[in-house]
Amino acid sequence: MSGEFERIARFLAPLADNRPEALGLLDDAAVLRPPSRGSYATTLDTMVEGVHYLPDDPPERVARKLMRVNLSDLAAMGAEPYGYLLSLCLPRERDDSWLAAFCQGLREDQQIFGIGLLGGDSVSTKGPAVLSLCAIGIGEEERLFRRSGAQVGDLLFVSGTIGDGFLGLAVRRQEFLWLASQERNALARRYQLPEPRLALAAALRGSVTAAIDVSDGLLADAGHLAETSGVAIEIAAPRIPLSKAAESILAEDPELFPSLLGGGDDYELLFTAPASARQAVLAAAEASATPVTEIGKVAAGEGVSLLDRAGAAISVDRKGWTHV
Amino acid sequence: MSGEFERIARFLAPLADNRPEALGLLDDAAVLRPPSRGSYATTLDTMVEGVHYLPDDPPERVARKLMRVNLSDLAAMGAEPYGYLLSLCLPRERDDSWLAAFCQGLREDQQIFGIGLLGGDSVSTKGPAVLSLCAIGIGEEERLFRRSGAQVGDLLFVSGTIGDGFLGLAVRRQEFLWLASQERNALARRYQLPEPRLALAAALRGSVTAAIDVSDGLLADAGHLAETSGVAIEIAAPRIPLSKAAESILAEDPELFPSLLGGGDDYELLFTAPASARQAVLAAAEASATPVTEIGKVAAGEGVSLLDRAGAAISVDRKGWTHV
Repeated sequence: MSGEFERIARFLAPLADNRPEALGLLDDAAVLRPPSRGSYATTLDTMVEGVHYLPDDPPERVARKLMRVNLSDLAAMGAEPYGYLLSLCLPRERDDSWLAAFCQGLREDQQIFGIGLLGGDSVSTKGPAVLSLCAIGIGEEERLFRRSGAQVGDLLFVSGTIGDGFLGLAVRRQEFLWLASQERNALARRYQLPEPRLALAAALRGSVTAAIDVSDGLLADAGHLAETSGVAIEIAAPRIPLSKAAESILAEDPELFPSLLGGGDDYELLFTAPASARQAVLAAAEASATPVTEIGKVAAGEGVSLLDRAGAAISVDRKGWTHV
Repeated sequence: MSGEFERIARFLAPLADNRPEALGLLDDAAVLRPPSRGSYATTLDTMVEGVHYLPDDPPERVARKLMRVNLSDLAAMGAEPYGYLLSLCLPRERDDSWLAAFCQGLREDQQIFGIGLLGGDSVSTKGPAVLSLCAIGIGEEERLFRRSGAQVGDLLFVSGTIGDGFLGLAVRRQEFLWLASQERNALARRYQLPEPRLALAAALRGSVTAAIDVSDGLLADAGHLAETSGVAIEIAAPRIPLSKAAESILAEDPELFPSLLGGGDDYELLFTAPASARQAVLAAAEASATPVTEIGKVAAGEGVSLLDRAGAAISVDRKGWTHV
């Protein structure tokens, strides 16, 4: 692999060409002027090879996943992407073609999401690759989403489908070989290339009382939202949106359902809104061409309850699910 | 080691208690209001265990080095520290006492430098620890330092002493055992606990034409400054400031001199100023109680020249130094 300075000049500096604040990556820091309106939202997520992605995942997709898990955090705040700093810690023997493909993935997502490189660092390790990205977004503070605003009586919504990230990882590990290749590919893609719900978040501004992105799993993240807001959340299990592929798999093995709710890596937007905003939420879903499903509601109390078709509580743990 | 959520709540959230923008580390991103004056300066540096610090370095010092190498970048821009995001990627087996001590080191430096935790991530690895810190500073854009502003005729200054970081690492690797223990400890401390020159940088505002921090080594960083400014830099070798410990070592082994200039890890401020600002620079040094030495000047051309007492060029490479 080429040296740090050559790597920065050859592969990384071109990614900063749309952000004059990056000073060509030639200075000790980037200079970020205050946005003309609003505040900055900043987040930093790290991915480790073999933990958050697989060593043989295509480098373009690794880069785009790193970008997108951070953009998903910005979406969960209702902020618009602006810039990012990048820490690349790669095995010494990693060749330049991997890095070139990785940077190509970053460039594709920069164009899609309107974001540019501001700075960062490039170092070597004897261990697995460790990739960190610090994303900076912009939003008007009073309109940014928080986890803490859910009110008793609010409705609970989720974008897209749940569990595909978990199943996509299983597919990449050679499970579900009986599944049609088209569905296998769709699931693997969901694991490798999450879809940050930025357009939906932008359309939802003013309607949402609390939001979080589903990275730890639907139930865990609903739990974070309930705890931070000081409320209880009830989720109607039959309403949880599933992809066709997930439904095919559950038809074969219904015991997998709790894993879909606990597996994480969905990067869907989970949010609450007053009942009076239901039409506005559906309009935002349509305007952003993003599927949104009403899956439950906010109640007094604490914790997350999963309810069956009859409204009875279901207890879920890693080994399965039973009626309470 | 405890799980991610417990780690964040127990060790990291208390570090965010002086920064309401961190939202208690309970949200998907921190919300950073525009500064009342000026712009943000952002930088991100990564340290790998066994590369940038030694596995048996005390965790408090590892934390403070991680903080300080980033603060040194802010000093090189003339920005004041404000907040930071942190990525902790630790071996699974690393126990909580290491993390507790690491966070204690962060807290000490937070108090010294007036900075607070804004957000970040905590993950596990099978490899060596990888620690990233994204520091955010504040400064008025027109008064921030750049690498690109050095002018022909400017004087070249450096803070502190050069080569102690390199020698400190050697001491930590059990070299120079003949040196007095007081000097050994002083050198080891310079390697483990660099001194970001923030007070000097603040006092220098308005006097400096270009600045960089010495992280790659005096000659390499002078080279970055020369290249970015499009000038040549001449350094008078006998003027380069050395610590007593470094002088003791050079008296035994003069061949080590080039290593001191190329070893890096000094985190001193290297900067240029017009000859008319010499008094202002010396006054800033005194006001900030920071040693500053005039070591050379900016000339037309390119590259870095090292000159001997008679003004003749010395060629330096890793094996030694000879007259050209």
